[in-house]
Amino acid sequence: MNHHKFAQTPPMGWNSWDCYGATVREEEVRGNAEYMAEHMKQYGWEYVVVDIQWSEPGATSSVYRPFVPLKMDEYSRLIPAENRFPSAKGGNGFKPLADFVHSLGLKFGIHIMRGIPRQAVHQNTKLLGTDKRARDIAKPNSICPWNTDMYGVDMNKEGAQDYYNSLFQLYAEWEVDFVKVDDIADSKLYSAHTEEIKAIRKAIDHCGRDMVLSLSPGPAPLEHASLFEENANMWRMTDDYWDHWHLLHDMFTRCYKWSKNVGLGHWPDADMLPLGHIGIRSVDGGGADRLSRFTKDEQVTMMTLWSIFRSPLMFGGELRDNDEWTLELITNEEVLKVHRESYGARQVYREDDRIVWCSKDDEGNTYVALFNASEEQAEVSVTWEELQLESTKLARDLWKKQQLGEVEGKISYTLEPHASMLLQLS
Amino acid sequence: MNHHKFAQTPPMGWNSWDCYGATVREEEVRGNAEYMAEHMKQYGWEYVVVDIQWSEPGATSSVYRPFVPLKMDEYSRLIPAENRFPSAKGGNGFKPLADFVHSLGLKFGIHIMRGIPRQAVHQNTKLLGTDKRARDIAKPNSICPWNTDMYGVDMNKEGAQDYYNSLFQLYAEWEVDFVKVDDIADSKLYSAHTEEIKAIRKAIDHCGRDMVLSLSPGPAPLEHASLFEENANMWRMTDDYWDHWHLLHDMFTRCYKWSKNVGLGHWPDADMLPLGHIGIRSVDGGGADRLSRFTKDEQVTMMTLWSIFRSPLMFGGELRDNDEWTLELITNEEVLKVHRESYGARQVYREDDRIVWCSKDDEGNTYVALFNASEEQAEVSVTWEELQLESTKLARDLWKKQQLGEVEGKISYTLEPHASMLLQLS
Amino acid sequence: MNHHKFAQTPPMGWNSWDCYGATVREEEVRGNAEYMAEHMKQYGWEYVVVDIQWSEPGATSSVYRPFVPLKMDEYSRLIPAENRFPSAKGGNGFKPLADFVHSLGLKFGIHIMRGIPRQAVHQNTKLLGTDKRARDIAKPNSICPWNTDMYGVDMNKEGAQDYYNSLFQLYAEWEVDFVKVDDIADSKLYSAHTEEIKAIRKAIDHCGRDMVLSLSPGPAPLEHASLFEENANMWRMTDDYWDHWHLLHDMFTRCYKWSKNVGLGHWPDADMLPLGHIGIRSVDGGGADRLSRFTKDEQVTMMTLWSIFRSPLMFGGELRDNDEWTLELITNEEVLKVHRESYGARQVYREDDRIVWCSKDDEGNTYVALFNASEEQAEVSVTWEELQLESTKLARDLWKKQQLGEVEGKISYTLEPHASMLLQLS
Amino acid sequence: MNHHKFAQTPPMGWNSWDCYGATVREEEVRGNAEYMAEHMKQYGWEYVVVDIQWSEPGATSSVYRPFVPLKMDEYSRLIPAENRFPSAKGGNGFKPLADFVHSLGLKFGIHIMRGIPRQAVHQNTKLLGTDKRARDIAKPNSICPWNTDMYGVDMNKEGAQDYYNSLFQLYAEWEVDFVKVDDIADSKLYSAHTEEIKAIRKAIDHCGRDMVLSLSPGPAPLEHASLFEENANMWRMTDDYWDHWHLLHDMFTRCYKWSKNVGLGHWPDADMLPLGHIGIRSVDGGGADRLSRFTKDEQVTMMTLWSIFRSPLMFGGELRDNDEWTLELITNEEVLKVHRESYGARQVYREDDRIVWCSKDDEGNTYVALFNASEEQAEVSVTWEELQLESTKLARDLWKKQQLGEVEGKISYTLEPHASMLLQLS
Repeated sequence: MNHHKFAQTPPMGWNSWDCYGATVREEEVRGNAEYMAEHMKQYGWEYVVVDIQWSEPGATSSVYRPFVPLKMDEYSRLIPAENRFPSAKGGNGFKPLADFVHSLGLKFGIHIMRGIPRQAVHQNTKLLGTDKRARDIAKPNSICPWNTDMYGVDMNKEGAQDYYNSLFQLYAEWEVDFVKVDDIADSKLYSAHTEEIKAIRKAIDHCGRDMVLSLSPGPAPLEHASLFEENANMWRMTDDYWDHWHLLHDMFTRCYKWSKNVGLGHWPDADMLPLGHIGIRSVDGGGADRLSRFTKDEQVTMMTLWSIFRSPLMFGGELRDNDEWTLELITNEEVLKVHRESYGARQVYREDDRIVWCSKDDEGNTYVALFNASEEQAEVSVTWEELQLESTKLARDLWKKQQLGEVEGKISYTLEPHASMLLQLS
Repeated sequence: MNHHKFAQTPPMGWNSWDCYGATVREEEVRGNAEYMAEHMKQYGWEYVVVDIQWSEPGATSSVYRPFVPLKMDEYSRLIPAENRFPSAKGGNGFKPLADFVHSLGLKFGIHIMRGIPRQAVHQNTKLLGTDKRARDIAKPNSICPWNTDMYGVDMNKEGAQDYYNSLFQLYAEWEVDFVKVDDIADSKLYSAHTEEIKAIRKAIDHCGRDMVLSLSPGPAPLEHASLFEENANMWRMTDDYWDHWHLLHDMFTRCYKWSKNVGLGHWPDADMLPLGHIGIRSVDGGGADRLSRFTKDEQVTMMTLWSIFRSPLMFGGELRDNDEWTLELITNEEVLKVHRESYGARQVYREDDRIVWCSKDDEGNTYVALFNASEEQAEVSVTWEELQLESTKLARDLWKKQQLGEVEGKISYTLEPHASMLLQLS
Repeated sequence: MNHHKFAQTPPMGWNSWDCYGATVREEEVRGNAEYMAEHMKQYGWEYVVVDIQWSEPGATSSVYRPFVPLKMDEYSRLIPAENRFPSAKGGNGFKPLADFVHSLGLKFGIHIMRGIPRQAVHQNTKLLGTDKRARDIAKPNSICPWNTDMYGVDMNKEGAQDYYNSLFQLYAEWEVDFVKVDDIADSKLYSAHTEEIKAIRKAIDHCGRDMVLSLSPGPAPLEHASLFEENANMWRMTDDYWDHWHLLHDMFTRCYKWSKNVGLGHWPDADMLPLGHIGIRSVDGGGADRLSRFTKDEQVTMMTLWSIFRSPLMFGGELRDNDEWTLELITNEEVLKVHRESYGARQVYREDDRIVWCSKDDEGNTYVALFNASEEQAEVSVTWEELQLESTKLARDLWKKQQLGEVEGKISYTLEPHASMLLQLS
Repeated sequence: MNHHKFAQTPPMGWNSWDCYGATVREEEVRGNAEYMAEHMKQYGWEYVVVDIQWSEPGATSSVYRPFVPLKMDEYSRLIPAENRFPSAKGGNGFKPLADFVHSLGLKFGIHIMRGIPRQAVHQNTKLLGTDKRARDIAKPNSICPWNTDMYGVDMNKEGAQDYYNSLFQLYAEWEVDFVKVDDIADSKLYSAHTEEIKAIRKAIDHCGRDMVLSLSPGPAPLEHASLFEENANMWRMTDDYWDHWHLLHDMFTRCYKWSKNVGLGHWPDADMLPLGHIGIRSVDGGGADRLSRFTKDEQVTMMTLWSIFRSPLMFGGELRDNDEWTLELITNEEVLKVHRESYGARQVYREDDRIVWCSKDDEGNTYVALFNASEEQAEVSVTWEELQLESTKLARDLWKKQQLGEVEGKISYTLEPHASMLLQLS
């Protein structure tokens, strides 16, 4: 499985959805990329991802406009709306924007929907590399339940694989590094679209360019865990995640269930980080223009869980509006080392919403995350036996970057509700 | 519930689907109507129903052509394809054909799909009686899973009820007597579309013309039995029914479950009778141009069950090709009297695929149907206690129109596999 | 179906569960019977029912004691615990208590659990009327999920029907008039126990005494509606019902779904009325010794719904502690006339928790129940068209027993949250 | 997770169920152990496991006798029936038999049912290490749906963990090496019993002796994959597996789904090998005394799949009746090396029942299993790209122990229906 050779660590980047919904514009992408290059790149952040509906010239929010015309080339392939992405003019597509991102030492990603545009099917437009046309390969009764852009593709039809190949050939020409495919991992109406997942895997392998494949939305069914690993680099464990405690609380169980499927090149995905300034042109998740509704304790808890579990980290807010505290939260090199280098993460126990996870690294360190997911202050402890440790260790608080001295046999801390600690034992 | 005032007996008629799929032409409708008037009307047969896609000029089979243009008026309402229904020319719609059917002393029916044409939504065409347009009322992610003609209608939207009202106003102008609405009773993807069922009820009540409302496809969920009774005259108990024994065998259970919901004006529907010459331009049900694959015993069993249960009777074959035996099967006045006048039908017992049903009439007769639904010859009996009878009775074989003499305490007959008897005890 | 000849109106009575859990004693039964005879009999109340575990000498609450010995005769049949039912001494069983109840002009009922006592199976005791023994007919892996008293009976086994026959023969000797069979209509673990329902029907028919058959607990699956009608006189539409608004609120939907199955001798059951003094020796339903937590408006709403729907009415509180208001609530002869004589009840509409039901009687009256099931004051209206009325009517408020004058075309009243009205239009 | 330190390769052994049902006797266990020591030990076979109901003195078949008394010690713990296991006399339990097995250089295993004996609960007997008694910890409505021996244990009750500890303390005293716990991984009635799985893990850890923990029956829900890995060494992927092709055919999908959860110390289990002489005193699986109904091709296919997937291998037949062919089938050292040493097994593809799996080892070998699971002869191929190979390889047929020469780019073989090949590429 060739795709496990890239994304050897969980991808880190920025995605436009949480702040700009379906409406992000080129200057905003460039601005966030510049910010990332300047402030975050050195910590491992690298992907800049344009989320949904970049072909829709009139997108104004996270609410889709049904049946509006999308920008499309002669081969039924969606292309960027030039009013929103001026550099795409002249048939350049996303190549100039990708070039810019690459010039900053970063990588460029896009979002696509599973399938073929409904407008291509209604007009029965041409396909590249086959004399079949859009209507020949469409599955007209396979739709996305929340957006009118596409029909599914019937992989039993001649020309179907050619269509998907033509898409990724175009993205390779644009020099795309990351593709988030939506309406595919859990389609709500029809479970996972396994045949189209496999077709997209083949199309990427065929295009000759390494691209991280990310599957949405979730919850991806655990039943298909093998298929996700064998075809994708990351896949969503949840439906859309927002800045609500109950969604964060729920993620502990999801991480527990998927923990056996975390590995080099394949990363169950806890979804984007709704941090900083979000909802600027989005009302998804029941919010509007705001700073993240998560408390600081909750933000630390989220980053701790995502890091020890090794979920991809995709920042959702407008980076340029980050305050000092938020920037520090996502650039703590000691925490990010856990995210990048530790492995074997497992939930040690969960009792009454006191939760402990641990992992280790190749330098002999053990990492311990203590969580108080309850509504009361609580003492959270873990023993050496539970951690499979034997001798005295030096403890370090990775969030505070402070030595805590020698410990042995057991550690125990009193945590506020929704709070957590991330410790290194060496 | 006004609609219980009509269809006081289970509707009887002819439907074009089993023989002509989506392709029936005006002369075929007229020819079958003439046959019905001449040979069947006197026995109670009266509805002549044009099934699906009469707006599709190029329909050639039971297989739908995705996304082809349908004939539509300026108000987003489908109208007959004139190449197939010449009398519809000049904006006459089905009025001339309905007039012809009425001139024969019969009634005229049409099939429609739930919703609004996809093409109307894509073109955002006008609606009658509201300044909203097609896109304003469509539910673009509510589709039929087996046909691309329509989107659902969102009954929460202003103009939605106006649209349905405008449809039935048109059908009233055409003098339609019977409407079979499809993709609504069991939508496969989304269960029953209860809001659109209620909207159609209102639209019929609003149009001022009595029209029998028939809901398809099935199996209609028993969970919504009250809703079906309160809004429709008939609704399907099964998915599409064809000339396979296992489907007929299965109908005994369906009839049993729905037997408490049979009543004046509301008739659970066992679907059309695939008898005689069927599959002429249809490959649905896995067959082609053929005579019904049911054996004679099975045909009698079907007619016996449909009659005592009081399912609507809609003949599916090309009537003009009926042989003598088939015509007699559907014009046995003694059997049809049971269908028309008996009530209180109940399954007396079912043991090892020996099944007995009974009903009664206002003249003091008891009707008994004995079924051998097994694969072996079997003796099927029933006692006076089970039938709640007390004295000696005169028995009559209604299929053979023969007196069987006096009986008391119990009757018992040996039946071939798949065979049945229908008896009158008076 | 012989059993539809009795219980021609929905049964009305008293049941010991809501006040005494599993612990009721003979003197309490007698006391409640005397109260009923004196204060309620003239209004139609007649059944006095001893609920669960009358064989358990040490029952102290609604919480069952697992595996305690139960009183049993030599034929594996449970008999009353004499310390709780002194008149049962000497092998008299419930005959003396039934005699007493009969002497008051009332009828006597008992509760039983589906199946055969576990203790009989473990001891492999004898059965009456067969040389098979308890272990031969038990289904040892068919249990009740909330009580350890019984195993199911395997109706495929020789002796199984004999066992059930022997039970009802005993109850006939005791002159029981009403049997509530538990763990059978919705068994939680295994859906409805349809074979044992049919066996009990046969056993009652066989015993030669009319006994009302009531099936518990619910929700009985609508899927088996035909079977319930054909075998029982009443069956529960819900799980245990208590004095919580959300359970009452939920009952509107349940009544709507089952409204087509209400008929002479067969009554979907909304469960006992948790009114007056309840929870005396019961903690079921999350309460303790208390007066009903329902407000007066809610009590009237409950009685209105139960009456127009025609649910059985089984009072749950200690009757002797009724206050004036409660006694009047259950003895309003005008409301009870609706319960006893009206028919054809249907939900006219439900919009935003404004709900209207109507029914009629043989004297030409129409009954209308207006409900405000919302949390805000609301105006609840209904038109003559919706009621299928045509001319001017005289309206009467049945709860207030007041004439409201002439009305035509529409009636409309402002109701407090959770409040209702019951009107007669004549 | 300490238990991942043992069972570092998938356990291999013999189990008495397939040949002796619930009835195996000591001399048969000894005889099979001697055979294993003499003929199989050198190939890695080591566990000798006594399956279900060794406490039942009168067991005669695979059909359980309900409610018969089981041998039990004073602390509610089942002990061997001495008539069947004479060395257990004098309170020795399985210690003498374990000693014997150990003396042969093999390991000893037993089967137990989840829970506490029903008879202990009915008699309310003592427990070891707590003053609570059987009835205090039982979950009386948690049963096994196919056997009457036990009730579940309520892990919320004081004394519950003590009870499980006392069981494994006893097994440690007996020097048991392997425990197969039944009615726990998929309980049919209640899904997986996760709390009792965790309690058993704790009890084994507490007892101080390494014991392989095997969970039955299946299919274990994939949803709980993390929990199974964290608590057990092996768990069943299927319900009981027998010598029917459709069950073997079905195993390919099961192995595919679970392939990501195979690892050191934790082995998804494809169930016992119904090979050789089986059904001697068992009618489970629809058979009787017989030689395996699998054809030779099917037997090779089964061994190939089990080996490359790395399922535990537990032989089900009476070993002493093995013919030469069967013994060779299970002692092919080249195939067993794949089972013991290869890793990373994955399904390369599956198309029309042509299936290819591959794995590798630390010596640089690639193993390829080609399966024709269809009903027709078929050519099964795989490319170097699919195998992620690059250069020319030497191919060897491991079943035939033959060099096949140099291969490059692709291999392809024509296989009979149900046949397979296992190749080493080096």
